[in-house]
Amino acid sequence: MTADDLSYLTISEAAAGLRRKEFSPLELTKACLARIEAIDGKLHSFITVTADRALKQAGEAKKELHSGNDRGPLHGIPIALKDLYMTKGIRTTCHSAVLENWTPDHDATAVAKLQEAGTILLGKLGMHEFAFGGPSVDAPFPAVKNPWNTAHIPGGSSSGSGAALAAALCYGALGSDTGGSIRTPSSHCGVVGIKPTYGRVSRYGVVPLSWSLDHAGPMARSVEDCAILLQAIAGYDAKDPASANVAVPDFRAQLKDGIKGLRVGVPRAYWFDENKGTDPETEAVFNAALKILESLGAVIVEIDGKAFSIARKANQTILVCEAYATHEKTLQATPMKFGSSVRRRMLEGAFLSAADYITAQRARSVLNDQICANFTCVDVFATPSAPRPPEAFESMDPNEQNLRPNFTNPFNLTGLPAISVPCGFTSGNLPIGLQIAARPFEEATCFRVAYAYEQATEWHKRRPTL
Amino acid sequence: MTADDLSYLTISEAAAGLRRKEFSPLELTKACLARIEAIDGKLHSFITVTADRALKQAGEAKKELHSGNDRGPLHGIPIALKDLYMTKGIRTTCHSAVLENWTPDHDATAVAKLQEAGTILLGKLGMHEFAFGGPSVDAPFPAVKNPWNTAHIPGGSSSGSGAALAAALCYGALGSDTGGSIRTPSSHCGVVGIKPTYGRVSRYGVVPLSWSLDHAGPMARSVEDCAILLQAIAGYDAKDPASANVAVPDFRAQLKDGIKGLRVGVPRAYWFDENKGTDPETEAVFNAALKILESLGAVIVEIDGKAFSIARKANQTILVCEAYATHEKTLQATPMKFGSSVRRRMLEGAFLSAADYITAQRARSVLNDQICANFTCVDVFATPSAPRPPEAFESMDPNEQNLRPNFTNPFNLTGLPAISVPCGFTSGNLPIGLQIAARPFEEATCFRVAYAYEQATEWHKRRPTL
Repeated sequence: MTADDLSYLTISEAAAGLRRKEFSPLELTKACLARIEAIDGKLHSFITVTADRALKQAGEAKKELHSGNDRGPLHGIPIALKDLYMTKGIRTTCHSAVLENWTPDHDATAVAKLQEAGTILLGKLGMHEFAFGGPSVDAPFPAVKNPWNTAHIPGGSSSGSGAALAAALCYGALGSDTGGSIRTPSSHCGVVGIKPTYGRVSRYGVVPLSWSLDHAGPMARSVEDCAILLQAIAGYDAKDPASANVAVPDFRAQLKDGIKGLRVGVPRAYWFDENKGTDPETEAVFNAALKILESLGAVIVEIDGKAFSIARKANQTILVCEAYATHEKTLQATPMKFGSSVRRRMLEGAFLSAADYITAQRARSVLNDQICANFTCVDVFATPSAPRPPEAFESMDPNEQNLRPNFTNPFNLTGLPAISVPCGFTSGNLPIGLQIAARPFEEATCFRVAYAYEQATEWHKRRPTL
Repeated sequence: MTADDLSYLTISEAAAGLRRKEFSPLELTKACLARIEAIDGKLHSFITVTADRALKQAGEAKKELHSGNDRGPLHGIPIALKDLYMTKGIRTTCHSAVLENWTPDHDATAVAKLQEAGTILLGKLGMHEFAFGGPSVDAPFPAVKNPWNTAHIPGGSSSGSGAALAAALCYGALGSDTGGSIRTPSSHCGVVGIKPTYGRVSRYGVVPLSWSLDHAGPMARSVEDCAILLQAIAGYDAKDPASANVAVPDFRAQLKDGIKGLRVGVPRAYWFDENKGTDPETEAVFNAALKILESLGAVIVEIDGKAFSIARKANQTILVCEAYATHEKTLQATPMKFGSSVRRRMLEGAFLSAADYITAQRARSVLNDQICANFTCVDVFATPSAPRPPEAFESMDPNEQNLRPNFTNPFNLTGLPAISVPCGFTSGNLPIGLQIAARPFEEATCFRVAYAYEQATEWHKRRPTL
């Protein structure tokens, strides 16, 4: 096995290798640290690398596994965290000057659960500032680059999570998603990420942006790995007021059951068609993906996309209002510590009235009913994860985004689980993602569909040249 | 039986009499209409009397009951509706010039359910304008008077419902409650009213004030009657987005089971004590009521009232924001059609920001947890329903209200079920109410406690001199 092959193992492959004693947690960790050292100067996916701590944890995991104290599939697996997950004794910056020197005194619930599962923490990952800015321009840490082409954006806001996975600097990562922040970088970096159902994963200790839209979730290099990570972090937590007291199933139980007869709703009319702006290459790749789902036994159903399309406005209003309410005191006290992009976006919320916000929440309730009404005739929704491939940094125009459909944020508004899985590449070798959304708390369905697609296409096996 | 005795029957007594053929629905209806004609000129509890329609319905009910087509305990019982329940073909004014000539083309869900149960609709009842103003000053309909002393307020906003029941102008009524609007007039008029759990009764077709605080519910002259009415109107309704899909129990099944061992939490510390302003006579009557509950086997537990007390601020902010959002277009288009009191209160919401509203909703979530945490050591909460007896119209000062505790609105904020039951009279013969609140969807517990108290004291049998 080459060093590259070791680094690009999936979690389930690495877990099997550990148990066959082909390598130890220490070797996996050293491989990651060496690769971070060698490559991350180009990518800036890490803000903080906790090398000493990781090596110590790896040594302990090695001993535990050796003595037969096996904590399960994540034991001895090196992972990394978007830098808005609070970590006891480790700086947590949110990629912002505001928190540049903040070291929490406790772990987020999801972090504690991953530690309990035996993972090894490599460090904290770059992101869009407070999960709401654009790629870093005036933050104290550089912008994360796309491993497939460093002149291109990795997508945000969990940019470091996407880039580090694509570059094989870690085996799994956590991201967060308020309007697409797990699914967009997963799509742009050619990895897998799931935004679970609202309430499925505790957000206790995850620095908030928008309490009614924020979701915590995992990212990885395969669908099965995502399921393994979600298994570890899911479940009720009284410390998150929105946490759902709903039983957590075995997310891998139906992974290989296939998708024969599954009804896949494509909200093309209005959403794709009338909101021009979906890149033709993306649409062609998406249509080819639907053909593959059909060949696997799924039934494609074209549905009305109007409610999905309208969701953007409600989502945006709720997001800026809640983001401003969350950060109001700091924005008032030290406005210039925020980067210009995130400051400008958050301050939009300062000028919206209670009535604006309430109107958006009422619209949300109507749109939620309209979107979920489709579940009488379909089992999942399928869309491209992003309307176009990762743009070049130099050609980015934030205003243009509003001319394109947003395929991710309706599922923040509704709280439905939604996964992004690699579904092809542009002629320029940039990744494109397929999004599959399912009924509330049916993450297992997202995994089953994405897995069937992934195994049929094996797009996830392609590696960037670094 | 005197005419007065016939009019003051409870619903359950009237239902028994109907089945013993002591009188017919037509006689009950005629008695109500005659009494409205004779007395309501002093009280103004009705805005619209639907005499012809009521007599027709009564004739039909008489026939149906005669032919053995028995719809249950409400069949043939004359009732009336707060004038914010939409009624097909009957003017629905909300006691406002804004809707003075509005005739809806469909019934509210609760209205349709009462009709299905065989009730006879006598008409529509006065209220505080849009359930948010004070006693009518500049509305097109006069203010409702208290039957116990017409110089005194009947309490609001379901003032007509309270007054009409106390004066025996109807046998049951519907009210609505956003901050105490069922419980306050129940207390002030010496009748029984329950604000059910949020989501228990559909608000479809009930003109909204504040969507996250509004509750629809019944009022009557006995606890059992309230349970009978709630039984008819409770249940899931997809047309109300906040309707709860929770099974409806038989609310009378445990009515007579007594309260031995029941733990009654009294949030006296801070709430009663530090927020001075509870009338001493009210507090004495309340303390005497606790002694009676103790004598019936309950255990009184003094608990911390801080969260209950703080609830007022959050409730008030949410209420004015949602009220403004609901009525914004009409307020902008025809501000002077609103009475001065409701216009002033609603416009407070125009000056609050999205962040103010969100902060209040976040506080609500914390306060809800703190209040409900008490359920580990108590089964119900008990308070006076109102901090003082009904005031004289001429001595009312709206600003003074803020110096007194508000015992009702924490249960709008939390959505917990809460009942008001008569618990005594002032030396001036004005009614005082006892409020009992229980766990979510445990209206049956409210009824059981209130029934035990009512049967032990029989305060509900006292009648005003009219």
